[in-house]
Amino acid sequence: MPQLQIYSETLLVSMETGPDIVNITPVLNDMLHRLGFETGLLCLFVLGSTGSVTTIEYEPGAVEDLRRAINSLAGPGASYEHEKAWHDGNGHSHVQAALLGPSVNVPIRGGKLVTGAWQQIVLINHDVRARERRVEATVIGTRSPGP
Amino acid sequence: MPQLQIYSETLLVSMETGPDIVNITPVLNDMLHRLGFETGLLCLFVLGSTGSVTTIEYEPGAVEDLRRAINSLAGPGASYEHEKAWHDGNGHSHVQAALLGPSVNVPIRGGKLVTGAWQQIVLINHDVRARERRVEATVIGTRSPGP
Amino acid sequence: MPQLQIYSETLLVSMETGPDIVNITPVLNDMLHRLGFETGLLCLFVLGSTGSVTTIEYEPGAVEDLRRAINSLAGPGASYEHEKAWHDGNGHSHVQAALLGPSVNVPIRGGKLVTGAWQQIVLINHDVRARERRVEATVIGTRSPGP
Repeated sequence: MPQLQIYSETLLVSMETGPDIVNITPVLNDMLHRLGFETGLLCLFVLGSTGSVTTIEYEPGAVEDLRRAINSLAGPGASYEHEKAWHDGNGHSHVQAALLGPSVNVPIRGGKLVTGAWQQIVLINHDVRARERRVEATVIGTRSPGP
Repeated sequence: MPQLQIYSETLLVSMETGPDIVNITPVLNDMLHRLGFETGLLCLFVLGSTGSVTTIEYEPGAVEDLRRAINSLAGPGASYEHEKAWHDGNGHSHVQAALLGPSVNVPIRGGKLVTGAWQQIVLINHDVRARERRVEATVIGTRSPGP
Repeated sequence: MPQLQIYSETLLVSMETGPDIVNITPVLNDMLHRLGFETGLLCLFVLGSTGSVTTIEYEPGAVEDLRRAINSLAGPGASYEHEKAWHDGNGHSHVQAALLGPSVNVPIRGGKLVTGAWQQIVLINHDVRARERRVEATVIGTRSPGP
């Protein structure tokens, strides 16, 4: 049986003012291809308390619907205690990100991420400014034997 | 120290029109028993962008309450951009599933899933039609030595 | 290459009536320091169907904002089917916990949890009474060679 290995890598993703929703599936599949993992698990964690990660069908309509739903969970127009103390305008961003959650795990089979045909892994920036978000990717799995 | 191993399996679950909430804990415990893992982690990922997974006390009242709460996050009666483009009636399903999230991890101790006494692992179909949903189960852990 | 290992530990956390939000990052970093894991993944799972785990900037304002947002997802004043059957007053607690989710994974690099500068890992008790909540921590990773 091939030995289980762990590998980690940091992804940097340029994002617009939130809620901005970016499809990171292609970048992740490129990483897996380069690393040669065959079977395993990709574990993603967004650094920072105004970012989150989930999956959705990445077509403009569904993405816009998710953006609206996120803003109706905690909208920029409401009153926030965080705002009263810090005046940085992103009270809603913290609440949105905490509700969505910072981590997701995706299975790897046959060297590829296994997702539904139209299911994409998306990174969300909830902050009130454009920023480069950092995602830690941890792969636990087995590699195919080298040539 | 026993060597860490990885194992993966696909579960197929017949589900009704969403939000349908099904208890998959017994199926998962059967799988673990068959595989002989002793300590580790079970990582679940729902394939498709209209499914999700979480835990709840699986009694009819709490399940109905969760169903209603899911529909008030994003109800079938509202207006969706996804719907305007695709006319497949499941704009709310995509939003619901993205908010709930596709993955959950459950610890394995002494050959069993460790959950609270009344806490069950549930699969949710948010789609507007009955369908067989696919869940990828990845187990990372140590097996008990054979007899 | 160092061998991948698994380790598990149970944390007990005293919590107030919900939604109570407690920062467990220091306890988790102490645990990692004691165990000597260098690189890997910390997987957390809250036992019981009225608890959840996520991350947030742990300052009083943002914590209060999250508390309010959780109560507007499913408030104690609404009508619950769970309540009609069980009369234990925590119908909303079950719904809140199922929406937030029971598990989160945090990367370990250089012997420490990798989180954003102001991002903390928080345990949430949604129940209507103070209780000692149990969290299962599973670490999968490599340890630094001993001295």
